[in-house]
Formats: sequence, C-alpha cells, structure tokens
Amino acid sequence: MENFVFYNPVKILFGKGQIANIATEIPKDAKILMTYGGGSIKKNGVYDQVKSALGEHDVIEFGGIEPNPTYETLMKAVEIVRNSDINFLLAVGGGSVADGTKFIAAAANFDGEPWDILSKRAPISSALPIGVVLTLAATGSEMNINSVVTKAANKEKRHFASPLVYPRFSVLDPETTFSLPQRQVSNGIVDAFTHTMEQYLTYPVNAPLQDRMAEGILKTLIEEGPKTLANPQDYDARANFMWCATMALNGIIAVGVPQDWATHMIGHELTALHGLDHGQTLAVVLPSTLTVKRAQKSQKLLQYAERVWGITTGIEEERINTAINKTREFFESVGVHTKLSDYDVTLDTIPLVLERLENYGYTALGEHQDVNLQTVEQILQLCA
Amino acid sequence: MENFVFYNPVKILFGKGQIANIATEIPKDAKILMTYGGGSIKKNGVYDQVKSALGEHDVIEFGGIEPNPTYETLMKAVEIVRNSDINFLLAVGGGSVADGTKFIAAAANFDGEPWDILSKRAPISSALPIGVVLTLAATGSEMNINSVVTKAANKEKRHFASPLVYPRFSVLDPETTFSLPQRQVSNGIVDAFTHTMEQYLTYPVNAPLQDRMAEGILKTLIEEGPKTLANPQDYDARANFMWCATMALNGIIAVGVPQDWATHMIGHELTALHGLDHGQTLAVVLPSTLTVKRAQKSQKLLQYAERVWGITTGIEEERINTAINKTREFFESVGVHTKLSDYDVTLDTIPLVLERLENYGYTALGEHQDVNLQTVEQILQLCA
Repeated sequence: MENFVFYNPVKILFGKGQIANIATEIPKDAKILMTYGGGSIKKNGVYDQVKSALGEHDVIEFGGIEPNPTYETLMKAVEIVRNSDINFLLAVGGGSVADGTKFIAAAANFDGEPWDILSKRAPISSALPIGVVLTLAATGSEMNINSVVTKAANKEKRHFASPLVYPRFSVLDPETTFSLPQRQVSNGIVDAFTHTMEQYLTYPVNAPLQDRMAEGILKTLIEEGPKTLANPQDYDARANFMWCATMALNGIIAVGVPQDWATHMIGHELTALHGLDHGQTLAVVLPSTLTVKRAQKSQKLLQYAERVWGITTGIEEERINTAINKTREFFESVGVHTKLSDYDVTLDTIPLVLERLENYGYTALGEHQDVNLQTVEQILQLCA
Repeated sequence: MENFVFYNPVKILFGKGQIANIATEIPKDAKILMTYGGGSIKKNGVYDQVKSALGEHDVIEFGGIEPNPTYETLMKAVEIVRNSDINFLLAVGGGSVADGTKFIAAAANFDGEPWDILSKRAPISSALPIGVVLTLAATGSEMNINSVVTKAANKEKRHFASPLVYPRFSVLDPETTFSLPQRQVSNGIVDAFTHTMEQYLTYPVNAPLQDRMAEGILKTLIEEGPKTLANPQDYDARANFMWCATMALNGIIAVGVPQDWATHMIGHELTALHGLDHGQTLAVVLPSTLTVKRAQKSQKLLQYAERVWGITTGIEEERINTAINKTREFFESVGVHTKLSDYDVTLDTIPLVLERLENYGYTALGEHQDVNLQTVEQILQLCA
C-alpha cells in the first residue's frame, strides 16, 4: 500500500425526508444563494421542499445552470454573490449544479481572473461555504473536492479541486431521483462505475481492502442499476445506487492506490467537441482504454474478471477479453451506447482531441503517466 | 436501507514516515499535552520521532495511561491541562491512550463532575482538540467519537461518544506496530473483526454495499491477520491490518444498517470483573451471542457463511454451525482463546455480570433490543 492522506469532512444526511433538516445545517443569519439547473426541481417537488425548509432564511435564487456548467453562466452567479453579500451557497441539483456551485464559491472570493482557477490551477485561499441537495446520483461531487467547468466560448472543459470547496453537508434523498429521465439515470450508472474503475483497474499494490471495496461498488452497481431502471420508484434500489455513486468518488477507495483517469480526460474532450453526455463518453472510451492498456493492467483485469464477473475459466487472454466485453455489455444493457458511431461521431475527431490535449499539456495520462498522444490515438481508433 | 447521518472529519496520515508531518497539523503556538501509556514508545523509537517532529512546539508529557484507562489516572491529566493552560492533546499509543485522551479533552472543559460524562451520559459542549499517533491497530478510536474509561475504585467500565472528540488528525504508521507483543496484535485482530460483526451480523435491510464492505474487512482480516502474526515486519500485512481496524469502526460500514453491540457490552463486564483483555472477552462472547441469537440472525449468518467462509453446502442449520465454528477457530488460530475456562473464569461470574448490567440499565441490548438479562445468562452459559 502506498502512503496516503485522507480527509473528508462532508456531513451526509441520507434518506427520505432529510431535506427538511437543512435549516439546522445553515447558520440562521446566512444570506443564501440557492443554485439550480433547468427547473426540474420545480416539477418534482424538491424546490418546494427546500423553500419550505428554509422558510426562516434569507434566500436568493439562481437557476439555469446547465449540464456541463459553463463559466459564462457561473460568472453571472459570482456577480450576484459579490453584489448581494451572499455568504452561503446551496446547490440543488445533480453533479453539474454541485460542480458549478463549487466554482462560484471559489471564484467569488478570488482576486484575479477566475478562469485561471481552472485553466492555470491558480491556487485559491478561501471559498464560500456550500451545502448540496442532490437530485441525481452520478458524479460524487456531493462528497468530494472536484469541479468541472466548461468555457462555452471555446468549448474548453476544465477541472479544479480544493478541500476548500468540500460541501459542509449534502442531502441525499433517493426519492428526489424518482422522476429523473432514464437517460440521466443510465449515464449516472456508467459514471459511478467508471469512477470506480479509474481507481481500481490499474496495477496491484497489495491493498486488498481497497480492492474489495471497489469490487463491492462495481458488483452493487451491476445488481442495482438494472433494478432502478426497471422500477424508478424502487426506493431501496435508488438508495443503493445513490450511495454507490457517492462512495465511488469520495476518496475512500482511492487511499493508498494508483489511479488512472485517462478515460475521463479523453471523454471530457468528446463532450466539449461533440456534446456527448459525460456518461456516454465514458461508456465509449473505457472499454478501449482497458483494451489498449491490457498488458499493463493484466493482473487487475484478471482479478476484475474473476471477482466482479465470475470469470474463472479460459486462458488469461480470453478471460480479459470476456471481462472487457462484459463491461461494454453492461453499459449497453443500462442504455448507454459504447461506440462513437452510435453518436454520429467519426474518427475525424481524433486530431481535434489530440490537439486539445496537447494544448492543455495532458500528454502523460494514466497510472503510469505513459498514455501519450499516440496512445490516446490508439484508444480512440478502437472507439469507432 | 435506513436513513442515516454520516460525518467523519478526521484527517488520516497513513504510512511510513508520517509522524514527521504532525508539526504542520498542530498550531505553532499550541501548548501540547502529549499523552502515552507504559513507555513502550520510548523503546521502539516512536517517542523520539514525535519529540523530534515537535521540536518547535511547547510540549508537556503525561505518561502512564494504562490499558483500559482509568478515571483516576486520567483526572490527573485533567488537572495538568487545567493548571498549565494546555490547549492541544496529542495521544501517542493505542486505543486506550486515544480513548483516555478523548476523556481528558472532554473533562478538562466540563463544568461539573466529569464522571457524569460516562455514568450519566452528561452532555459536553466543548472539548480540547486532539491529535493521535497510533501505535496499535485495534479499536478504531483514531477515527471515531468513542471512548471507554474504567473507574478503578469500583471497576465500572463506561462509555461516552461525542463528535467533539473526533481527533483532528491521526497518524497511522504501520512501522510503529512492528515491535508490539504478539498478544496485543492478536487481540487487535479479534477486536477489529468483532467490531465489523457487531455492525454486519444483524438482519438484512437491503444495504448491499455496506454488506460487501463489511465482508471485505472480514475477509482481509482473515487473510492478513495470520500474515502479520507470522512476520511482524511485513509492512504491507501490518498496513492492511491497520487500515482494516480503522475502517471497521469509523462509521462507514454502519451507515443505514442496524447494529448489535451486545457482545461488547457483556465483554466490558468480563474485563472489569476479571481483568481479561478486551479482545479476549470478544473472542469468548461473540460465538455464544451468534449461537443464542442464531434464529433472528439466520439470514445474515447464512450470507456470512457463504461470502466470508465459502460455505455453500449442507442444510441451513449446518452452514450456520460451521460459520460460527469457523469464527471461533479463527480467533483461536490468531492466538486468542474463546472459552471462559481458558482464563480461569467460572460461571459463578454470571450473577455478577447480570447485576452490573442491571445497575447500568443495560437490559435491552442487541439490534432488536431484546437481549435482556435472561438472554445474557444464556450467552454466558455457552462461554464456559
């Protein structure tokens, strides 16, 4: 096991009815900016629950944060925060709203051009406190330090991370997800699964508990994902999926082990260039990354084959093939297609992706930092 | 899954060499009371590492905290804290030092008779900040809110819990455990195993991820426990065991599931009355608790049999018998005996234990609150 530091102070309030408890988690005299997305929370009752819980609080609203939240939109919220003495941010929505609100929290206090936080990893020294009411299980943003923001002007999709933007609390009420469109649930399953794989499917470092926890998340997603799609109002299935998505990216399975993330970095460019959903890009890229890097990943691929998919017969190459195929089939089975052609994207995209990665300096990806532009090209060739 | 709140802000610094980093985790102007036990840290180099790391800090020492730390000893430390303007406590040792230091942290600020914190669950409103340098994997105290303290005068072993005594940080360096006596390592394995069982071996509530994480800890302890006993300087085995012990009682496997703890409550009385090590009491009591409650626990016992011990054949009663026997054999195999007679305790102890539990009001233990004094008697009869 490698040395590590683990710190995650997010308070999780999990279960039905928990939205009612947010008032006690936010200072009484706070001036709150409540952020949300396209307005689905007004149809499914979440907006009313939040407003009711915050009856005694001073709340301003900022709606319209889009999927893959844009810098341009978020900066409008930053202006409101600065001009209205906002001192608490409450994100009500999925990962995009949470990610966007983290950026607002960091940018509002930032002395300089806030885009630098994303493009230059400019350090932040403070951030507004954040609470989250999660309405979509997928990204894990509700219990981590990560934020991904896109500049609409040039389609740059960039990332920052800081412990300063850990939510103070996150409410996870599975009932808020009952009314989600199937596509968002499907994408969420693929997202949580791939987050787990990015931290698990690398090379062995003798960390058996971390391995078993990651395998536990993968197996639970394989069990519960189809259940929650078949019956969206199955509370337990939604609850189990929701908790898996949070545990997949709150740092606990990452302790002391190497991490990959090449699939995510390539996927981000496909979203930026072609508008694919984040989950769709992962479903396309992950099987190809595993295939191209199968030699270096062979020990963990064999372990994954056996423990997650029960594949114990055949020579090693066959077991690895089957495990990668099972991964692809699982994504397809939950309704997310796994080929670029399914999204009308051709291999003409390859030079565009490579150019963008090169511009960002992302030319040494993966757990061995050896996924260079040539390797990315090999991976994308297999995504056709 | 049941509703839950999860919050655990302890910063974990894990791995070799991490003691050197504690200086940056403690305010420069802090006045520190460094607490420790019988002095083993002066033999194994930990004391020197800590003192070296804190070269710039103002440190007073308080040694002599005993296994099953006593109220009488800890109150001496409370006096020092109060008289010397101590504002940070650094516990260097195992679970007893950590538990004792949590009590010091709460008692120093307590307005009233500090024993009430333990005996009457008197609420605390503040506590001194604590850091931990762990030298023994077992209790999980390094990453939780629990503390167990014994009044030597009348052998009362009592418990309190408060988020205010979460350590600010805990250093887990597996190398600090290389020189431990085998008996302490053996007890630690049983302790971590039983902590996991208290949260796992109850009844199903459709929480598959929590189940798999608990099973992951149990399986890893079964694998790594014997390795670390066979070769105490096997860094990875010590590291994996140490992380299992922390994860077994930091709250993460407890979310949304029922908990038992009857074995612990009975075991505490055997320690108080007869001086058995905590781990020894658990090894004695757990197999009997599982046996007496086998009907109510049957579904989880069958799952435990299959997933942890690979028992898949035979009728249900046989599988349950085998799983309980395997548990007992595992404890014996790591060097902890599982019968009261092994410790020269006779069944004459039963009325004494029952009387004490009744005096504390502990007459409705277990996940169904139905482990009454009669059930405790049945359990103890099987421990002979």
